[in-house]
Amino acid sequence: MSEGSFRERAAELMRGIQSAICDGLEALEHERGSKARFARDEWSREGGGGGLTRVLEEGAVIEKGGVNFSEVFGHFSEEFASKVPGSGTAFYATGVSLVLHPHSPHLPTVHANFRYLEHGDRQWFGGGADLTPYYFDAADKEHFHGRWKAVCERHAEVADHERFRDWCDRYFYLPHRGERRGVGGIFFDYLFVSEEDEARRAAVFAFVEEAGHSFLDAYLPIARRHLDDEVAEAQRRWQELRRGRYVEFNLIHDRGTIFGLKTGGRTESILMSLPPRVQWHYAVEPDPGTPEARLLDELRQPPPPEPATKLRGSKEQDAKAPRR
Amino acid sequence: MSEGSFRERAAELMRGIQSAICDGLEALEHERGSKARFARDEWSREGGGGGLTRVLEEGAVIEKGGVNFSEVFGHFSEEFASKVPGSGTAFYATGVSLVLHPHSPHLPTVHANFRYLEHGDRQWFGGGADLTPYYFDAADKEHFHGRWKAVCERHAEVADHERFRDWCDRYFYLPHRGERRGVGGIFFDYLFVSEEDEARRAAVFAFVEEAGHSFLDAYLPIARRHLDDEVAEAQRRWQELRRGRYVEFNLIHDRGTIFGLKTGGRTESILMSLPPRVQWHYAVEPDPGTPEARLLDELRQPPPPEPATKLRGSKEQDAKAPRR
Repeated sequence: MSEGSFRERAAELMRGIQSAICDGLEALEHERGSKARFARDEWSREGGGGGLTRVLEEGAVIEKGGVNFSEVFGHFSEEFASKVPGSGTAFYATGVSLVLHPHSPHLPTVHANFRYLEHGDRQWFGGGADLTPYYFDAADKEHFHGRWKAVCERHAEVADHERFRDWCDRYFYLPHRGERRGVGGIFFDYLFVSEEDEARRAAVFAFVEEAGHSFLDAYLPIARRHLDDEVAEAQRRWQELRRGRYVEFNLIHDRGTIFGLKTGGRTESILMSLPPRVQWHYAVEPDPGTPEARLLDELRQPPPPEPATKLRGSKEQDAKAPRR
Repeated sequence: MSEGSFRERAAELMRGIQSAICDGLEALEHERGSKARFARDEWSREGGGGGLTRVLEEGAVIEKGGVNFSEVFGHFSEEFASKVPGSGTAFYATGVSLVLHPHSPHLPTVHANFRYLEHGDRQWFGGGADLTPYYFDAADKEHFHGRWKAVCERHAEVADHERFRDWCDRYFYLPHRGERRGVGGIFFDYLFVSEEDEARRAAVFAFVEEAGHSFLDAYLPIARRHLDDEVAEAQRRWQELRRGRYVEFNLIHDRGTIFGLKTGGRTESILMSLPPRVQWHYAVEPDPGTPEARLLDELRQPPPPEPATKLRGSKEQDAKAPRR
């Protein structure tokens, strides 16, 4: 298979994931009596490529949700190029990225991202999904993690669930708050592929394909379980305060957000991840024993330690020591 | 005068500015029938020193306002130490920093900061004040700039108003939005002082002292002018959307915020600058010819160019080429 056609297959995969997820979420809106649809905003990028941003605002379930597809290419800055695996500055990237902020504080915010990158002589996939509840629910957490574990286990030759789970907990961490962003999920990067090893490339592709198409199964049952939970005013306030942490993470720590903004990415597509309504008040701390404090008990755990072993091909540390 | 006593004088200056500003704002609240007061939160820092954070929430005029005093000392990280003037890693810093977010979108948000730093063999003052309106008012802008111009002109041997004004416009700029944060004010840093040149040290001290005690004169007349302006629901929404830009600036660009959060500063004191209620919606653009569009006309100006000349002592570029 030529490189051209693998890029096309990767972009087609990302577009397909975007489309299926938007359809599934619109169906949920429809069930709840809303005619809300994901608007389509096609855009092109000066340096090369473009994308399709789809945003739904003020649905019955979703207060603000964005599902972005992009396929971009061109040249990294020298500085950025030196920080990622691969030679030279030429790159190609295609991916889908989503964040859903439901109205109800009983439905978690959720994020997922799947991407394929080429930089000089290296090609790799990355991605993941993570859940950010406002109220802790052990069954929700179990369901979400269970779905990703099952996907990884069906692709065990390329996907190490435990490693991806811990990586997620390390990545989505706010040091200045001493809090995890949410209850985790999976995060993976540098799943290297190449033309020379078609079997591995097909295996990684199949993993990312199944992961992308598992998003709805991972999230919708959780959403459905809480659709009719009653919302008190104080719970809504708590949700808006916690959404502040989401903003803090995305603007201070998220690699994709910061890289995108600092290198001329499309601002509105990048920042569609930010919650629709947010509050910051001074030194808010819930009373011990409340459901709000229970969430913090869950989030105020240190991140898992860095893995001790360095394995070939699909591991976290590869980013720091790219093969040249 | 011994170094010890100069530090004490500098800290006393900052404490005095904090106190005067809180008193002035409480008096305004009182006039408007509110009993809101700045709460006092004293804190100490593990590495050395501490501060007094004063926050007022839900006043008649101020929705959220914070005025923070700190006096901290210890050691910079090697990495940070290499980026600021002065030798070694030992530092001492005292300052006052404030952000006021009024309820009404017709009152601008305002920020000011005055600080004294010692790092190894160098000592300097920095600071400034800048105005972030939600609706453009030429008279407000003129008043605010006029006050700072007058202060600088009374201390012309150490304060270059034009330079400080342009520096402010360059500093408070959001490249990813192509927008200035507000209508400017002044920003200055690296006003170096030393024991050896007592005349200059006294002159810089006098400038910072007058600047700090001019804050109320610079802001209160603007606030008073708009206290009774009627607020429509759509104007409040516009304010909350624009406050999103404030968050973006502070979390992505503001040196003090990022440095503080990444080096174990007191999170709640640093982030008291964030607005109480904020909105982000997708790709909001006001209709041409509206008052909202008028604000954007004002903000969507490129920042002034970097100054061409490099002058001794008080200039922007000194940060990049510290004397060793």
